Amino acid sequence: MKIVIANDHRGVELKNKIKNILERKGYLIYNVGTDTLDSVDYPIYAKELSKHLEVGDLGILICGTGIGMSIAANKIKGIRCAKANNITEAKMTRMDNDSNVLALSSEMDLNEVEKIIDAFLTTEVSQDERHVRRRKMVEALENEY
Amino acid sequence: MKIVIANDHRGVELKNKIKNILERKGYLIYNVGTDTLDSVDYPIYAKELSKHLEVGDLGILICGTGIGMSIAANKIKGIRCAKANNITEAKMTRMDNDSNVLALSSEMDLNEVEKIIDAFLTTEVSQDERHVRRRKMVEALENEY
Repeated sequence: MKIVIANDHRGVELKNKIKNILERKGYLIYNVGTDTLDSVDYPIYAKELSKHLEVGDLGILICGTGIGMSIAANKIKGIRCAKANNITEAKMTRMDNDSNVLALSSEMDLNEVEKIIDAFLTTEVSQDERHVRRRKMVEALENEY
Repeated sequence: MKIVIANDHRGVELKNKIKNILERKGYLIYNVGTDTLDSVDYPIYAKELSKHLEVGDLGILICGTGIGMSIAANKIKGIRCAKANNITEAKMTRMDNDSNVLALSSEMDLNEVEKIIDAFLTTEVSQDERHVRRRKMVEALENEY
């Protein structure tokens, strides 16, 4: 399992901090985000992340609000991108939605981000029948539209 | 212009409060969410909202975290669903992403929610070339996947 991370120009600083923290914890990080402050288009990076996200991998996307990235990423089949704002949401979305990508705002506090990522990476996906049924409905929407 | 609002069982209480506030302010509200506490599947309500969202309308989706709704809604062509957590994010996502649906967590504070919705409903979409270009890229993802 690896963690694929991507970002636009607004997310470079936070990406580097996250990358260092996660590598120190022993995670394998694959960085496909931009590494300069030159303005780039976030949908390109959401798509790039999706190309490298294999089954079992988890992803992290960062832009100014995290919203542009989450909209773009969720347009891609197989990506369930969660903009989680606190530890509870990070746990809930892994459990219930089996979300495989976490969207973050570059404006978030690093200590809070570290806790959110930790919750996202360590929470198990629920196999409860109602959650499985709802995930299948989301998959149906991917195929319908 | 109308505001289409939908929710699962977790969002009934917040939906009713929002509906009252917005109706007092003179907005036309179209409620397609569930109105009982019986457990329902959020993707059904995200889809239902999308059916009634005409050009120029804005939408509001509520579930426990707001994340399940935002993932499901963004799978639908033409929906750009933003889970905005504060006033700045609500303004930014309307301006930059031209997001047409706001996702909210049922756990959010009502006063904060009121300010976020106000920012979302009153901020103009930017026609800046770079934002228009990025929106076209998101649209391309909708057609590609």
